[in-house]
Amino acid sequence: MRASNYLFSTLRDTPTDAVVTSHQLMVRAGMIRQISKGLYTWLPTGVKVFRKVERIVREEMQKAGALEVIMPGVQPAELWQESGRWQKYGPELLRLIDRHGRDYCLGPTHEEVITELARNELTSYKQLPVNFFQIQTKFRDEVRPRFGVMRSREFCMKDAYSFHISPESLQETYEVMHKAYCNVFDRIGLDYRPVLADTGSIGGAYSHEFHVLADSGEDDIAFSDESDFAANVELAEAVTPKEKASPATQDMTEVFTPDCKTIQKVAEFLKLDVTQTVKTMLVKGIDENEESTIVALVLRGDHNINELKVEKLKGIVAPFEFASEEDIFNKIGCAPGSIGPQGLKEKGIRIIVDRSAAVMSDFCAGANKDDYHVTGLNWDRDCPDFEVADLRNVVEGDPSPDGKGHIVIKRGIEVGHIFQLGQQYAEALKATVLDENGKAQIMHMGCYGIGVSRIVAAAIEQNFDDKGILWPESIAPFSVAIVAMNYDKSEAVRAECERLYTELSAKGIDVLLDDRKERPGVKFADCELLGIPHRLVVGDKGLANGTLEYKHRSKGENQDIAQADALEFIVKQRA
Amino acid sequence: MRASNYLFSTLRDTPTDAVVTSHQLMVRAGMIRQISKGLYTWLPTGVKVFRKVERIVREEMQKAGALEVIMPGVQPAELWQESGRWQKYGPELLRLIDRHGRDYCLGPTHEEVITELARNELTSYKQLPVNFFQIQTKFRDEVRPRFGVMRSREFCMKDAYSFHISPESLQETYEVMHKAYCNVFDRIGLDYRPVLADTGSIGGAYSHEFHVLADSGEDDIAFSDESDFAANVELAEAVTPKEKASPATQDMTEVFTPDCKTIQKVAEFLKLDVTQTVKTMLVKGIDENEESTIVALVLRGDHNINELKVEKLKGIVAPFEFASEEDIFNKIGCAPGSIGPQGLKEKGIRIIVDRSAAVMSDFCAGANKDDYHVTGLNWDRDCPDFEVADLRNVVEGDPSPDGKGHIVIKRGIEVGHIFQLGQQYAEALKATVLDENGKAQIMHMGCYGIGVSRIVAAAIEQNFDDKGILWPESIAPFSVAIVAMNYDKSEAVRAECERLYTELSAKGIDVLLDDRKERPGVKFADCELLGIPHRLVVGDKGLANGTLEYKHRSKGENQDIAQADALEFIVKQRA
Repeated sequence: MRASNYLFSTLRDTPTDAVVTSHQLMVRAGMIRQISKGLYTWLPTGVKVFRKVERIVREEMQKAGALEVIMPGVQPAELWQESGRWQKYGPELLRLIDRHGRDYCLGPTHEEVITELARNELTSYKQLPVNFFQIQTKFRDEVRPRFGVMRSREFCMKDAYSFHISPESLQETYEVMHKAYCNVFDRIGLDYRPVLADTGSIGGAYSHEFHVLADSGEDDIAFSDESDFAANVELAEAVTPKEKASPATQDMTEVFTPDCKTIQKVAEFLKLDVTQTVKTMLVKGIDENEESTIVALVLRGDHNINELKVEKLKGIVAPFEFASEEDIFNKIGCAPGSIGPQGLKEKGIRIIVDRSAAVMSDFCAGANKDDYHVTGLNWDRDCPDFEVADLRNVVEGDPSPDGKGHIVIKRGIEVGHIFQLGQQYAEALKATVLDENGKAQIMHMGCYGIGVSRIVAAAIEQNFDDKGILWPESIAPFSVAIVAMNYDKSEAVRAECERLYTELSAKGIDVLLDDRKERPGVKFADCELLGIPHRLVVGDKGLANGTLEYKHRSKGENQDIAQADALEFIVKQRA
Repeated sequence: MRASNYLFSTLRDTPTDAVVTSHQLMVRAGMIRQISKGLYTWLPTGVKVFRKVERIVREEMQKAGALEVIMPGVQPAELWQESGRWQKYGPELLRLIDRHGRDYCLGPTHEEVITELARNELTSYKQLPVNFFQIQTKFRDEVRPRFGVMRSREFCMKDAYSFHISPESLQETYEVMHKAYCNVFDRIGLDYRPVLADTGSIGGAYSHEFHVLADSGEDDIAFSDESDFAANVELAEAVTPKEKASPATQDMTEVFTPDCKTIQKVAEFLKLDVTQTVKTMLVKGIDENEESTIVALVLRGDHNINELKVEKLKGIVAPFEFASEEDIFNKIGCAPGSIGPQGLKEKGIRIIVDRSAAVMSDFCAGANKDDYHVTGLNWDRDCPDFEVADLRNVVEGDPSPDGKGHIVIKRGIEVGHIFQLGQQYAEALKATVLDENGKAQIMHMGCYGIGVSRIVAAAIEQNFDDKGILWPESIAPFSVAIVAMNYDKSEAVRAECERLYTELSAKGIDVLLDDRKERPGVKFADCELLGIPHRLVVGDKGLANGTLEYKHRSKGENQDIAQADALEFIVKQRA
């Protein structure tokens, strides 16, 4: 591509309405323009990157044996009524009415349409397993679209849906797709983690999210520094410490702690480390007779409660709810901040202690009396009757649940999600096939999504500097920029530029020849903003010595290379 | 692709709801399925063809220098209000309201969005000309969607929009795009014609449609048998005949023609050829004083009036309207079927004679008296005062308007349309750039559409037989089918199939290996229905002699080829 025939649309200033880096840089680099809240036009530079991502995704899906389909964006309400989601989906589902008064929606996802297809086209177990994918525009009427194409209303997804005769077959394809997703992100060249995830509202049993690691990510990812283990922080298990509680060395002592409303204040006041304190929270529970009750949860002072984990425990009300201050006062006689585990059992309160809190000794807790705490508390001696469970979020340094290494926590941007849906949709839409015995069986389903447009933004969040984007080679809008100095005046420069342009292009390399009548500074700035990995500067001075100037966008300094070696050099740099 | 991993979804019977061949075959070949009126899912075989068409279109657009963008499908009402089309577009524009109560539409076309982009991004004549294209899903809420993807509600278009500082620059890009469109259809391998077209409701000055010739087409295309000339029948000029009217040899005679209500009846009754008769029609006109009047139009008996041509004449009411029977009776004293040109001038009626009728002599016309006609009529002698104009549709055998060859008329399917829009949208949206003198100038626009999904259907309408589709090599879902006989039982067959599959695939050829446990008849039928151009049959009998059986889908008979030569043979056949 010759710059003189191209649309740059680069901006020097950061757009005021863009908060995150990728949004700012995509606007500045002339990749996208908003035409309405959450609706974007992709400009040529954006499309070039987008198509490269799309291509990698398509190729990996094909390699994984998935068959490409294209489903309509506009979907009939009837199918969503059959699955029950017409009522359940909420206002993100943009509903519309056609000229004949029939109800439709703009598809945010395609479980219903594909299941309708499967129930019509798949009749025998012999056709299974089969996996359909599409790369298609979706619409989600976000209440607050933001972060550019990261959370836009119209966006491009690769979604795939697999159909199976058994959970075992589903598991096999799930693993194939897990690998295919890894291949996609490996090929693009992103630092990512497949993390064990919650299945959320889409339903199903087993699921992984694929996160690109970046400081601006919305999710906290816990992963091992020595193994493949990775999970959403909420889902990562905080394992039982190896050590046991040490024997008591102190007496339990009540101390006056005026105005100490937080754990930090208490620890400061008593000159203790926060790790020597526990916090005790009372939450709503249900006893064996199905009656409302109160349960005490005890965590180490520096740990945070994990509501998802607590809710899964038997006898706890879900959604998670704290006991009221009134109930606490009636039961214990103090405010919520002054509770300690000792003596609660005697008041008929069930006690569940977090695994890490359960191995403490000589620790500090509330005294069940306002403005007082106790120190020198020991489980065996002072409060022996309790259950132990995993109640907290993992923190950095925790042992990894798979026994290998320790937990590191980083922020991640979700760019992919794979699910074992099981039979939920197939059951609702009665999608059956005949099994080996000629008996109708409801199929098992997997579903697999990748945010194609979101990957573009996530790649930038992970790869930028103060001058612009640092594209991985695989998805750069152009691989090589030839920056011509004095292109319009120097015949020698023009000739060399044309040679390089023609010969590099002939090798299938995506080259931008900057032949514009602009100052070198403008050309360099655009080149850096656009994140083109390789830059060749062609000027009369160098040509006099038979050299060109080469610079990689992110690695190394300017260097002179011989004209004669330029092609070979570039090919080598790109490898 | 191995057939055992593929979804065929072929049907033996013609679906009852499909009227046209392409719709029937696309359903039968497992290319599409309707999920709601005018909304289709493309199945794997359909997608394979679709992507090949899309790729050719994209490559030719890039070669033509167009830059790819992606505009949103959901468009804000404000832009359509600015252009005035929010009111004008009618119910094909599907309007919708988002969760915040704002108005949007599902884009049937993107003039507004691209013009909004252009007015923001283009500021100087130096950036022009520039041409943007996208390949994108569009929505048109057709009142009666039909013919499968030929006239569906959701469909894929390549639309391009060019911007210019002058009409001359627009003309240049228009010609480049005209050529690019020809390249697309040439590469696909379709019999098509670029035809001069009416600009219709989209506005603008100059336009060509690209039609794929097929008996099932909705439009009549007139083209020359010796040149490139082609036009919609309505737009093709019926040129002035070279011959002049012969001198009169008969007297004008009034004859009684009872019950002859049509030209055919009159000719039969009088034993004349229809070409020796004229028909005279009275239509509404306006005279120089802007007052309503009646105008007589005279055509040869076998010719048909062209309302578009008539409406463009000065003094004729548009839209075209016949005079009422009452007005005719009051003015002439007879019914509409008995009018003749003679004597009308004397009654103050303007007479316009079609070019072909004006060179007739000794002809027959109505006698301006019910149940009577005249024969032996001659212009010079009996009705000398008239104007001559092109009033009729061309017919086969007419001389081509470009002077080369004669007119042939065939039916065509419109698959592309290019327009010179001029300044209509740029003016409405105030899209200006600064010219060389720093003065703001409204840009000139071209727009260029190709129906990507429609091309798939049109290619079938032009290429099928009673067994199924006959794909051109360029867009066939698979280029080669390897049909294995006894695949599961014969080790030799399996080995040879695998060899062929691997080696052909390695050459970048799209191969289907039919390894299913099906009867040969089923495999052959699927192969023919899908229209795979090249078929290799691998069986034990042939292998014993070192041969395979080759058959081209549409050319030639079965032939045995040597195993050793198979690769080279196939490569040669495909070239």
